Order: sequence, then structure tokens, then C-alpha cells
Amino acid sequence: MKQSKLLIQTLRETPRDADVVSQQLMMRAGMIQKVAAGIYSYLPLAFRSIRKFEEIVREELAKDGCQELLMPAVLPAELWQESGRWKFYGDELLRFCDRKAKAEVAERRARGEKPDEREFYNFCLGPTHEEVITDIVRKNVRSYKQLPMNLFQIQNKFRDERRPRFGLMRGREFTMKDGYSFHVDDACADREYWAMFNAYKRIFSRLGVKFRPVEADSGAIGGSFTHEFHVLAGSGEDAILSCDACDYTSNIEKTEAPALPAGDHGKAFELKRDHFRTPGVVGQVEQAAGMIDADHPQGMPITQTSKFFLYRVTFADGATKLVGAVLRGDHEVNPVKVKNFVGAAELELMPLEEAEAFTGAKSGFMGPVGLKDVTFLVDRSLEGAVNLTCGANRTDYHHFGLDPVRDLPGCTYADLRMAAEGDSCTRCGKGTYQAFRGIEVGQVFKLGLKYSKSMGCTFLDEQGKENPMVMGCYGIGITRTVAAAVEQNYDADGIIWPWPIAPYQIHIVCLDPANPEVAGVAAQVEKDLEQAGFEVLHDDREGMSPGAKFKDADLLGFPLRLTVGAKGLKDGIVELRDRRTKEVVKLKPEAAVAEVSVARDRIMQELETAGGR
Amino acid sequence: MKQSKLLIQTLRETPRDADVVSQQLMMRAGMIQKVAAGIYSYLPLAFRSIRKFEEIVREELAKDGCQELLMPAVLPAELWQESGRWKFYGDELLRFCDRKAKAEVAERRARGEKPDEREFYNFCLGPTHEEVITDIVRKNVRSYKQLPMNLFQIQNKFRDERRPRFGLMRGREFTMKDGYSFHVDDACADREYWAMFNAYKRIFSRLGVKFRPVEADSGAIGGSFTHEFHVLAGSGEDAILSCDACDYTSNIEKTEAPALPAGDHGKAFELKRDHFRTPGVVGQVEQAAGMIDADHPQGMPITQTSKFFLYRVTFADGATKLVGAVLRGDHEVNPVKVKNFVGAAELELMPLEEAEAFTGAKSGFMGPVGLKDVTFLVDRSLEGAVNLTCGANRTDYHHFGLDPVRDLPGCTYADLRMAAEGDSCTRCGKGTYQAFRGIEVGQVFKLGLKYSKSMGCTFLDEQGKENPMVMGCYGIGITRTVAAAVEQNYDADGIIWPWPIAPYQIHIVCLDPANPEVAGVAAQVEKDLEQAGFEVLHDDREGMSPGAKFKDADLLGFPLRLTVGAKGLKDGIVELRDRRTKEVVKLKPEAAVAEVSVARDRIMQELETAGGR
Repeated sequence: MKQSKLLIQTLRETPRDADVVSQQLMMRAGMIQKVAAGIYSYLPLAFRSIRKFEEIVREELAKDGCQELLMPAVLPAELWQESGRWKFYGDELLRFCDRKAKAEVAERRARGEKPDEREFYNFCLGPTHEEVITDIVRKNVRSYKQLPMNLFQIQNKFRDERRPRFGLMRGREFTMKDGYSFHVDDACADREYWAMFNAYKRIFSRLGVKFRPVEADSGAIGGSFTHEFHVLAGSGEDAILSCDACDYTSNIEKTEAPALPAGDHGKAFELKRDHFRTPGVVGQVEQAAGMIDADHPQGMPITQTSKFFLYRVTFADGATKLVGAVLRGDHEVNPVKVKNFVGAAELELMPLEEAEAFTGAKSGFMGPVGLKDVTFLVDRSLEGAVNLTCGANRTDYHHFGLDPVRDLPGCTYADLRMAAEGDSCTRCGKGTYQAFRGIEVGQVFKLGLKYSKSMGCTFLDEQGKENPMVMGCYGIGITRTVAAAVEQNYDADGIIWPWPIAPYQIHIVCLDPANPEVAGVAAQVEKDLEQAGFEVLHDDREGMSPGAKFKDADLLGFPLRLTVGAKGLKDGIVELRDRRTKEVVKLKPEAAVAEVSVARDRIMQELETAGGR
Repeated sequence: MKQSKLLIQTLRETPRDADVVSQQLMMRAGMIQKVAAGIYSYLPLAFRSIRKFEEIVREELAKDGCQELLMPAVLPAELWQESGRWKFYGDELLRFCDRKAKAEVAERRARGEKPDEREFYNFCLGPTHEEVITDIVRKNVRSYKQLPMNLFQIQNKFRDERRPRFGLMRGREFTMKDGYSFHVDDACADREYWAMFNAYKRIFSRLGVKFRPVEADSGAIGGSFTHEFHVLAGSGEDAILSCDACDYTSNIEKTEAPALPAGDHGKAFELKRDHFRTPGVVGQVEQAAGMIDADHPQGMPITQTSKFFLYRVTFADGATKLVGAVLRGDHEVNPVKVKNFVGAAELELMPLEEAEAFTGAKSGFMGPVGLKDVTFLVDRSLEGAVNLTCGANRTDYHHFGLDPVRDLPGCTYADLRMAAEGDSCTRCGKGTYQAFRGIEVGQVFKLGLKYSKSMGCTFLDEQGKENPMVMGCYGIGITRTVAAAVEQNYDADGIIWPWPIAPYQIHIVCLDPANPEVAGVAAQVEKDLEQAGFEVLHDDREGMSPGAKFKDADLLGFPLRLTVGAKGLKDGIVELRDRRTKEVVKLKPEAAVAEVSVARDRIMQELETAGGR
């Protein structure tokens, strides 16, 4: 492909409205163009990367017998009402009236009524397709003999994000692979879950990026049956902890924290009320330092202090209750663990004013002792510890001598804290956690009976008995993954594409395109490489300095650059440069295919060793 | 692929809501499923056909250097306002409020206002993408050196049809390839037009269907610069005339009609007013037979009568005028020709009541003579003819002796009539027209400056001067084409897929899957064929009669069926059957690859000779 004919306009300046690296670089490289907030056109170079990734996804899913289909983007309200999501899905679901519903609204308006169009919305743009696929399967599958079945599509989805941002990372319209599986029982659904888990590992390995499958929080459903797949990148929104000795890797929201016994495990003395006074001191460390008495001239060790959080939780049936969480002073609370431990659907930290009224103390001096109608949870690092300090529910004061078992009737010890880098692994007991940041690009999820029960998706078993199918769902953000690959692979000069999804693999930069001899060699090398199966972009643009061309090539970031210029050709050589290592090899033009093949093999080898596990 | 694991449910009965053959057969074959009116899921078999056709389109367009990209489906109102189409596009354009606009409406509602949501619509679903592509090109292309450029996408579009019907033929959501080209001048745009014309011929030839490129009406723009591509099928909505001696083929709306001189070309006598009285007689033929006087005891020859049509036309600037068209009594008027001849944007037959008031006569007795402020057009078959009859503008009466030049001051002769099968070809003068019915599946169109002028899409020419780009656009209805292929290729038993887009090429029907020996042979043949590169569906379903399996195979309509049964295997044979010819070949299982290859070559050869020209 001749670059002079390619739809591409590179930019020297970073666009003002681009707020992450992938968006900045892809806009500067002329790969994507904003059409509206969170809505982009994928220009030819980006389209090539996207398609390549799609084909990797298709090939790997085909190995597991998944069948591809395509469902519509515009979906009728009826199906969503059946599953119940029409009501519960928030404003991200773009609802609207079709022509018929609009006519009905207009007619009422003409009759002098004041109709509210919202009440007539009868379609939406599908953000996911559980309802449609469940409808398809319930109409087409009757017998256990047809199961299991795994169906997927690759489609542009729309989610009306409140704050679309980060380019392709959190757009409103985006390309997604969504797959759904149907099974006769849990055991079969679990097998498929792990088959998809492995397929996703193959997919992201082939992509050539560093990634981790991460145990994730599955909310109130419980169990370990959801994994997120994260591309590792410093800019990632998610924190991940991964054991350095075993496979355990999880989203920090979910990572099990080891109990860290510390402080006083001796004999409990009585609770000394309002023992310490630290007026105006905020911050756990500062307060501990200020808790001075005869026995503690230097203040209290922080491991003997406690902190307290007061939550209001709501259950699926609408019931609410108050939960108080007690943790060691130097530990961070993990609200997701609190929520899951009590089995709540939602959890909210009690608003400050309300908490002050409830406890009678300002922030920093609230504590569990004496509070009524509160369920107390104590982090397991405090199990057996006594003689702790705690907020006195009196501003400026702390009690001393808290014994949770004695002072917090009915309290339960549980894993409540946020695990941290350096904690020992709770799975293998040998390694310690390392911290990463990740971009979530895929998820496998065991859905269970949620949709098959509400929508009546059943099959006849061997005994002719009707049962609901057990379902799983499996998503990959296609465009998000391509952007995440850029977030992980760039330097100050531009993108460094992983070979498998590079828009082109080789960038021939012809420095003297007006010189027929140089142009001839460049064209011949292009032809040779293309005939050998390589994908080549040939920068044949006239009237540009070598510096400007090299800058563009670095920005576009194809794995290999092959420079053809009059100067080098005097000595009969062209130069092959590795975008990542910047290493340069000089070679004869006739050797291009051989040298590029060697370089390709080396790069693929490096990707393999650098990839996920 | 094992059929027992395929998502497919065949139906014996034709679904009640299916009104054309392709829809009936594709629904019965479990290929498509209705989600809402005009909105379908493409199940795995249909998806395979669609993808195959998409790949044919991609391969052929790549040969002409077209670049693929993907624009969003959800488009902001601003771009459409810039081109002017926001206002002029009808209700097929699905407009809606995004989250932000909805919040604005809700806020006003909360303030007690009664906002009309229509006034806040700020997005639409793109039915075509001229605005977006023009926006992309104006932002990314500056110089004549980057032109010409041809960009396309394959995407699901949405058009909110008033009456969605005919399954995939006129759905609301459908897959379309839309391409757009940009040029420095007309000559270059014309070259690209013909390049795309030839690419489309290659595409539909490779598809393996009978088709015709058809000159079509380009509306007020004029010129011959639009061709439609039609798949020929008896159920087609469009009438096409094609010369049997030359390449001239056109939509009947547009087909040039030869002048057919007839009637009296001698000396004109004076206009005999109200000469013939035929009270209560309607119909041209009946009236002519009733026009009896001394010289015409058997009535008038129909070729000497005239008929009259009164139109109100509207021009692009909003001006209107009345146009009266006079044709020979036995000819049919072509309103599109009338509209184009006067250069109008719209044309409407004057409503009956209004015409009666205007002429003073009932239908059947209106005529041109004496009407004021009417522009008269006379069909060129009447050029030189005199002494015609015409309606007298008095109910029950006709004048006799009309001489258009004398009696209709300022009248113009023009080609106004609908050409018909058997007319001699106006292009070559040698052949005659044959009639076909067609389904429009593609169109190439020279857009000119319409969008580049309104949206400021310019380039700098060699002199550094700014000029608007000349544009062309090129569409193929992908899903419509697949349905049209079915409309053309079926019999009483089901679909007969053209090889190139058959979901699978070979259908192995195993009659005794519970018999390990038979199942083993079937599995081996499946493996052999797949290894040889053929696509095979293996009907391994147990507990079904051979008849039921054959019925399903005929319905699905893959080109070749290979039957493996215990009975045949006793003699060491399996049977290969051609779906179209129903011819059966007996062969040894080991010869399957060789025999299937022979059959494939024969089928492809037949397709080539049967295809379009």
C-alpha cells in the first residue's frame, strides 16, 4: 500500500480533548476520528488492527466449537421487559421511540394531550444481548441432545455513558465480542467456563500483550465464577494483586487478605472509657502518636489501634441494616468484602452528617462501643487481639482496652481489609502479592439461571422433563483491547504495535521517492515482501524531509521499518530497524525478505515469552 | 460441523408472517429469526452466507485500491444539519435524544414546561454515511496528491421503514456495504465510476447469480451516471428492459422508448369540437371503438386517439407549475420521464376532483385544448401526426382533428412513454427489448459536488487553489443480496444455494448414525472433505427417518448432498446428489474428495455461464 494514497493525516500536536495515551497516539497517528463524545470512526489503519484481532478471536473460538451469528443492534422493549432489565438498567441503555411510537405520541399531541415520550419508548440499542440470545435458544433448542451450545457475535454496541472518555477505552459506541453458552447442568456450564477461560488465555497470548486472568468480584451471586482478563498497563483503572509463587491473581476488590496477627494477645483489661484525648488531631497515625499515658510515653503502636466504618447495606428484597466494620488502624477497609460478607445487594458508607448524629462524635472519633442496632464485623487480623483503642463516640476522645468479643456482642471476624502488595499469598502460603495495574478487556461469567428462568428457556432432559438451561456469558471488548495494547506498548515517539495486530508489519520509508532508482528499489522491496506474505506500507510521499518521515514512522509504530535512500544505496544497502529495540541492521535490498523473516521470528519469540500466563 | 450441535430448527410449515419466498425459506431453514418488524437475527447458517458474500466484496474492492474503515452507526445531528438532510430526510431517519438531551428535556419538564422531545433530538441512526465520510475526508485530505480516494465500510444500517416487509429484502436493520470516492475533477470521478461498475460486475458474477447492471433514473441530477445492479427474479419489484442485441439494459422508469409513427401524417383539417360523443364509456380502447361517424363506421383506430395527463410539478426552489402530457391512446405514460424532462424535483398527478374542476370534465374526457397556464409535452411517437382525437373538456365528448403544433401553442415533443417489451432498441437500432423483473441489490452513483459544496470538502490543486472534491457513492445491500440469491434459486423443496455463498458446500446425511460402522464412514468422509478444504455439515442426528433428513437437506439447499447409509455401504457405496439437477452419482467413500471436486468444478462452470454480463 502506498502511503501517498492512504487516508491518514498525522498530527504533531496532541489533540486537546485526548486524555489517555492510546487516544492521543491513535488520534495523532490518524487512526481514529471523533464523531461525537465517545463515538469514533475507525480509519483504515485502526480498522486493520481491529479486524486482525477479531480474526484471532474467531479462530480461537472456532476451536471450541463456538458458533457465530449476528443479532440486531436495535432491540424491542418487550424482550427487555421480560427479563426485567428494561426497568432496572440505568440511563446507559439508550431507549427511544420508533416511527410507530412517535406517530402515536404525535397523534396524542395533536389531540391536545401532553404525552411524555419516555412512556412510549419501545426500542433500545442493545448494550448486551442476553435477552435476544435467550429468546433465540428457547425457540430453537428443545432437547438435551442439542446441548451444550456456545453462540457468539462480534458487533458494535452502544452504551450511553454518563461521561464518555479515554478514546476507545470508554466510548459510547464500541465493538464487542459477546458470547453465551447453554447447558443441561452446572457441571457442564463449569466445564465450558474453563474452556472459555483457556480460549481467552490463548486469544490474549496470540495478541502479543502482557495480560492476567484475574479473579473478580461476582457481586451477590457469589462463588469464584467470574474472571476478568486484564491487559497490564500503568494507566489501567484497576488494581490487581498477583502471587509471585502461584497462579492466584485477583482484582484487589476481591483479593483475599491474610490475617496479620499483631498487638496485644494477652489478658484483656477493662475498657478505659475516654482514656486518650487528642483534640483536633486527624489521621490514624497522628492520633496513635498522640495517645500518650504513663505506659505509653511515645504513643500507642498503630497495630494496637482500631478504625471504624459505618455502612448502610440494602438486600435484594429491599431490607436494610447497619453494619459496623472494625479494622486495625494501619489497614484499609475493602467495602466490596463487607458487602459480600453480609450478602447485600448494595452498600453505602453512612453520610458524614448522619453518622455524626448517630454516634455523637465528629469523624475520627467514632467507634463501635455502645452503638445499637448495628451488626459488627471485625477484620480477622484482629482475631484474638485485645486492649485496642477505639473511637469513643465523643469528639476528641478514644477508649482504650477494646476486646471485640466482650465489647461488641455478636461480632464476627471476617476478611474485611484490602490486601496489599507484599502480603503473603492466602492460596499457596508461599509467595507474596505483587501489585499491577490493568485494563479490563474481557470477562467470563457464569450466569446460572437468571435469564433462562425469567424468560422460560428450557430443555427436555433424557427423562422428558423440562428444566431451565444453565447459562454462561463471555465478553471481549474488541476496540478496547486494541486501545489497551497501545496503552501497554508505546514510547515517547509513538506506538509500538505488537506484531499480530499491527496495521502493517513493515514500513518502507523511501527517502528519495523522486529519484527513479531509489523509488525503483523501494517498489521492488515492497513487492518482494508482499509476495512473501508480509503486509507493507510504503511511504512514497514526495517533498518531505527524512526527519519528518521517520517521525511519522515512529508515531505509527509498525514493528519494522525499512529505510531506502540514495545515500545507503550508493553502498548498496538499505536499513532495517526494530521499532521497539531501535536496533538497526544494514542489508542488501535483495536480502529484505530473509532479514525481515528473521526479525519477525525474533519478535514473535519475544512476544511469546513476554505474554500472560 | 455436526448438525446435532448446530443452532438450527427447521420448520415444516411456512410461517404465517413471511410474505416472500426468501423469507419463507430462510425462516423455515432456521437461518433467520424475527426479533421485531423488519429486524432479524442472522443465525449461524445465514451468517456464514453473509460473511462469504462480504469477503467477495472485500476482495474485489481491494483490487481497485478501495480502503475499508468503519464509521459509527449513531450519528450526531450537527453533521446532518450541515448537509441539510436533517430537515429533508423523512421519518425513515430514526432520530432520538441521547442521555444529555433527555436530561435537558426532563429538567424542563420538572420546571413545569411541556417540552416536545422531537425538538431536542440530537442523534440519529445512520441510514447512509455521506456526511460522516465527507467530514473525515475534509479533515484528513488536503492535497490533490492524495486523490483519488475510495473508502468503504460494511455495516449494519437502520432505516425506519413505514412498512417493513419481505424479510431481509426490506428490513429496518440490514447489512450494507457503502463506499464513497473523492476526486479532483469530473473526468477522474467518471473513471472511478466505471471502475466500480466493473468491480460490481465482478462481485455479482462471483456470487453466482443471474444479474443485470441497469441504467437507472438519477432524478433531477440528470445524465446517465447511475446504474443499479439487479438480481433477476420473478418476484422482483422492478421492471427491467434489456436489448437482445446490445448491452443496453435499463430500469423501465428510464428506458428510452423509440418513436412509433402511426396515424394520420397528412394534411390537417380544422379542429372539430365535441365531434364524438361516447356517454358513460370509459377506457381508451372502448372509447375509440365508440367514436363513430360517416368516415369511421367502425370507430377510430386507437393509434389516432390521444390520452392526456395533468401534473403539478415542483422545482428545487419551491416553484410549481402545471404540465400536460399528451400521448397516443395505446401508450403508457412514464411519469419519471415527464418529471426529468421539465427538470422538476417532484411530480404529482393532479388529484381527480381538482382536475375535474380545472378542466370542467369528468375523467376520460379531459384534454389539452384550451387549458390556460399549462406547459404541454407531447410524446414523440405523435411527432408529425395530425387529426387526432382528444378529450373535449366536456363530459362524454371528444374533439376530432387535434394538431398539437397548431392547437397546443408552445408544446414540445419528447420521449414520455413507458418503453415496452418488443420495442426496438434506441441504442443499437438492431435488437428489441426483452422484459425482466429484478431485485435491486446495488447502485453506483455519481454524486458530484452535492456534499463537498455544502460541507466544504475541498482540496488544494497543483496551483494551490482550493476546489471542492467531486464525489461518487457505491452501495451494495449485503443481506438483501443474499435474500435475492434465494429468490432466484429455489424449487418446491427449498433453497438451492449458489456455491460461492452456500453456508456449507456439502451436506453429509448419515442415515444410520447409531450404527458404528456407518457413523465411522460418515465421519471419515467428513474429515477427508474438510481436509481437502470443503465446508461440510454432517447430519449425525439420531432417531430421524431418512425422509425427514432428506427433506431438511433439500430445504437447507447446500449444493451437494452425500448420503451415507447401511444399505449402500453393503455394496461399498455412498451417493452424491446435485441439489439443482437432482442427479445422483454412486461412489466409493474413498472417492468422495475426487468426485466432489469434479462436481464443484462443473457447478462453478455452470454458474459462470449462467451469470450476468
